[in-house]
Amino acid sequence: MIRERLKQLREKMALRGIDAYLVTSSDPHQSEYLADYYKARAFVSGFTDSQGTAVVTRDEAILWTDGRYFIQADFELQGTEFKLFRQGVPGVLTVAEFLKDRVRPGGKIGFDGNCVSYQLYRDLLEKMDDQILIGSLDFIKEIWKDRPALPHGEAFAHQPEYTGSTVADRIRELRKRMGQQGIDNYIISALDDVAYLYCLRGRDIPCNPVIFAYALISRDQALLFCDMAKLTDEVKEHLASNGVEIRPYDEVGDILSQIPGKSTLFFDPASVSIALIDRAPSNVQLIKDRSIVGAMKAIKNETELRHQRNAYLKDGTALVRLFHWIETGTPTGVVTEVAVVDKALKLRSEQEHFIENSFETIAAYGANASMPHYAPSQNRQAVLKPKGLFLLDSGGQYLDGTTDITRTIQLGELTDTEKLHYTLTLKSHISLISAKFKVGTSGHYLDAFSRLPLWREGVDYNHGTGHGVGYLLFVHEGPHRIAVQPNAIPLEEGMVVSVEPGLYVPDSHGVRIENICVVKKDITNEFGSFLSFEILSVCPIDTRPLLVDRLDDHEIQWLNEYNQSCYDKLADRLSGADLKYLEQATKSISR
Amino acid sequence: MIRERLKQLREKMALRGIDAYLVTSSDPHQSEYLADYYKARAFVSGFTDSQGTAVVTRDEAILWTDGRYFIQADFELQGTEFKLFRQGVPGVLTVAEFLKDRVRPGGKIGFDGNCVSYQLYRDLLEKMDDQILIGSLDFIKEIWKDRPALPHGEAFAHQPEYTGSTVADRIRELRKRMGQQGIDNYIISALDDVAYLYCLRGRDIPCNPVIFAYALISRDQALLFCDMAKLTDEVKEHLASNGVEIRPYDEVGDILSQIPGKSTLFFDPASVSIALIDRAPSNVQLIKDRSIVGAMKAIKNETELRHQRNAYLKDGTALVRLFHWIETGTPTGVVTEVAVVDKALKLRSEQEHFIENSFETIAAYGANASMPHYAPSQNRQAVLKPKGLFLLDSGGQYLDGTTDITRTIQLGELTDTEKLHYTLTLKSHISLISAKFKVGTSGHYLDAFSRLPLWREGVDYNHGTGHGVGYLLFVHEGPHRIAVQPNAIPLEEGMVVSVEPGLYVPDSHGVRIENICVVKKDITNEFGSFLSFEILSVCPIDTRPLLVDRLDDHEIQWLNEYNQSCYDKLADRLSGADLKYLEQATKSISR
Repeated sequence: MIRERLKQLREKMALRGIDAYLVTSSDPHQSEYLADYYKARAFVSGFTDSQGTAVVTRDEAILWTDGRYFIQADFELQGTEFKLFRQGVPGVLTVAEFLKDRVRPGGKIGFDGNCVSYQLYRDLLEKMDDQILIGSLDFIKEIWKDRPALPHGEAFAHQPEYTGSTVADRIRELRKRMGQQGIDNYIISALDDVAYLYCLRGRDIPCNPVIFAYALISRDQALLFCDMAKLTDEVKEHLASNGVEIRPYDEVGDILSQIPGKSTLFFDPASVSIALIDRAPSNVQLIKDRSIVGAMKAIKNETELRHQRNAYLKDGTALVRLFHWIETGTPTGVVTEVAVVDKALKLRSEQEHFIENSFETIAAYGANASMPHYAPSQNRQAVLKPKGLFLLDSGGQYLDGTTDITRTIQLGELTDTEKLHYTLTLKSHISLISAKFKVGTSGHYLDAFSRLPLWREGVDYNHGTGHGVGYLLFVHEGPHRIAVQPNAIPLEEGMVVSVEPGLYVPDSHGVRIENICVVKKDITNEFGSFLSFEILSVCPIDTRPLLVDRLDDHEIQWLNEYNQSCYDKLADRLSGADLKYLEQATKSISR
Repeated sequence: MIRERLKQLREKMALRGIDAYLVTSSDPHQSEYLADYYKARAFVSGFTDSQGTAVVTRDEAILWTDGRYFIQADFELQGTEFKLFRQGVPGVLTVAEFLKDRVRPGGKIGFDGNCVSYQLYRDLLEKMDDQILIGSLDFIKEIWKDRPALPHGEAFAHQPEYTGSTVADRIRELRKRMGQQGIDNYIISALDDVAYLYCLRGRDIPCNPVIFAYALISRDQALLFCDMAKLTDEVKEHLASNGVEIRPYDEVGDILSQIPGKSTLFFDPASVSIALIDRAPSNVQLIKDRSIVGAMKAIKNETELRHQRNAYLKDGTALVRLFHWIETGTPTGVVTEVAVVDKALKLRSEQEHFIENSFETIAAYGANASMPHYAPSQNRQAVLKPKGLFLLDSGGQYLDGTTDITRTIQLGELTDTEKLHYTLTLKSHISLISAKFKVGTSGHYLDAFSRLPLWREGVDYNHGTGHGVGYLLFVHEGPHRIAVQPNAIPLEEGMVVSVEPGLYVPDSHGVRIENICVVKKDITNEFGSFLSFEILSVCPIDTRPLLVDRLDDHEIQWLNEYNQSCYDKLADRLSGADLKYLEQATKSISR
């Protein structure tokens, strides 16, 4: 199948004299998760997960992905011509280095400019010698015969009782910031930025409650570009009453081409495509920087946080029921990973205001959990047995919040290594989540808090420690993150972020413990102003796999307090055997 | 006095139409520590410590310094016209921002271009509107009548038995690296880089065993520019036999002006002055980057490390005697801070191959220790009393190594806060020094390991956590450092670095615990390759002030093992009451 697709692609390349064709994991909005229509990279390579880049030359086919997906990519690329290039591993060529090495000066590199960000384009351009970049070639469109349709779901307004501020409030604040930076026009492409600004949600991408849309804000106009069919009368009224004008999706380029010459145009180069920016008049002054709306969106207001807390209570209720169900069912041999996925969705669906999952559920038993982003399917899944560890990373979209949580539980006898790795992962989790940190501290610096207890024992994990989480929006939201990779963005009061260290041993087991937190003010004294985390997630952390002697006193105290808080918050919401299970699961431990 | 100097300076400024005059803490080599001749900033402002910048306008006089010196600067600037601008405090103008704000476009900013680095000059230039920078004005020379003489000490060769490689070896390695980067000529201005490359030492700057010199390396020549009178016949032979040619110090500019056009000239923009670079022909291609010799020098070879270990043994022997002397003498009321400084020098002098102190001894009793860089003098010093804490930060230059160590000891009854701060400082110290870390980890990231236990308790220190240490060279040596300020330089095997967290409460007390370490290979396994620290410093850490209940098991174990290792290494070198003191000081503790 992949062989046939590569053959067709290379025929197109030969016809147009293209030496290398680049296929990104992207849509015109540079979304992380894609509607099926835009899964061109998965179509061409067979690697199905969310992050990766493919390059096809006349005699090579390469897929790049990062540490989270190495194991899965190895598996999925088996038997295809594609070779895996491991991003971030020393000595492995980057996409740009590969293109420069394989394509002769004067040679041609083709791609679909709608699915390549301005930033990626400029980075590539800078690194080439004299290779020519041609961004007008959507070859995938030509060879993908049974391509899925573009989504047509309805949009809905996220009401002020949930958002805590109106669309008009948000536009006013944005215009204030634009004015301070001398910005006349601001083109917004990131779907969650558009959704946040206009308090608008939809169902265009599974798990990502947005619609395909652009926004263009000037000093006196606020435009929304989208498929008009998605807008109900109610939504139209919501927009009109806040001063937002609606335009067809496809007109964004035309309108952009008409903004006044010599005015300034701001955009986030990471989320706007090179094809769109190419439409702006050449005498417009481009201002490129990190999204201003993104910075506004990252700081949750008190209304948003109040609802988020409630969403996590509901989510925890569903999860305790789920874990009880898993543990009861496992010994009977009928609980499969897919059954867990289905049951998780069913239990969450019973909670008020549930909409859909916030990402594809990772239900991973035993060795499957060693793949941090494993997702089971009917064709490839395990049956849970009363032995070893089971990892569940899942979340929901609720009208009042987006959840994401990982727990790893003991199903039966554990090896010493499983116990050790579980214990060290919890130490790592506590080390970061119980921390205080100075105002101005970046997520990069904080990442060290999580690695310290692991590195001391000579173990580590090959993924980030924390990501921002949206509010009825994307489960991965910037600009902040907690990661080894340098970033200078400070964690600020009101930011929501995950804390999710793990340990993975291929072919054996995997552990991850994830809670979602909000950054809160802590003490201010003569040594400075400190922040700390309030934990939103409410679900007991399994104490059974722990080597209690390896825990410090403050770690035991933190764990007991956390589990007790889960009992206090959830007991009223559970009854019968579920409540008994909660009681058992939240019992305090001691040395 | 300061008033008179400012008056004279302003007269010079008025005569030449200068609106602002900049005085850096620098010499033509951008040294951190200065020969008396170059202490122009101290002369003009009265602030005597090693870091600071002065700007004088017609009606303002401002001194910038960083957190280490705030308290001292406040003290020393009292009664002068100078205002203190606290570097790094939010809202405080930087030097460039101040100049841009106070000098009108077209106005003139004067300075001595020999004492301003290329980098500082370019940074200033970039930030100005249309203010004019004039780098040929050494007004201080004109007004400083009793200026100290330039130093005239003799140079000496650091022999291969100590350096582990010859000058010829080092030049060969340097030329290899120059070749790889297409460098034809390399002008070296940093005094320790010259000293390292040519295995040459001297006494031109107190505590810094170097001579004033430049080096210029091309593919076929290796030149040393220095005062010929400093070179004995033995040194001349050492240089000649390694292919190094000698030129008068003042000819460096002339020779630089003669390098072939169209060739490349490499230099470290942080250490070469703008006045010198201005001498290079305009058709030479400048290549600016971090010092290549500095990168070579930072990685100590096995011979250097073997000698360093021995130097630290000698240093520890002197220190144990010193602390015994202090504790015995304190109750009699005759031990002053200056007496400790003198005694420390005397005891170090008794050790083999001792040359001089490696920096000005910080002997700080009680509240004086709250100033991290306090140095006592006959006019301002305390008498030690059997109460509270005493901090000693000191080090020596030995033929076989440079030492630097801080201990804080209990002299008598302590407050609860003193005990807590001592305990937390030790926790911070252990957290970093006992760490393993992945190959590639920067000192910025590692800094977090040290802050974590302090921040958790809402305390912090306002200085870096660690600096590189030279080998019979500067006690502060780059390019690596451990600090909150971002830097991307990874700690590598063979680098020597300090670990020195502290806690300071103005008008009350200060604690700092510092050891010097070398980065060593640690475990390599399926999780990656790890590094860790080997501690070079050998001197017991006082256990008496500790709140033992606040220590974790692994911290108690680390402390007992460290103190036991001090006993094992030093017992043979001590006798009588000194040995008894060591026995007492290294007794293990438990909860």
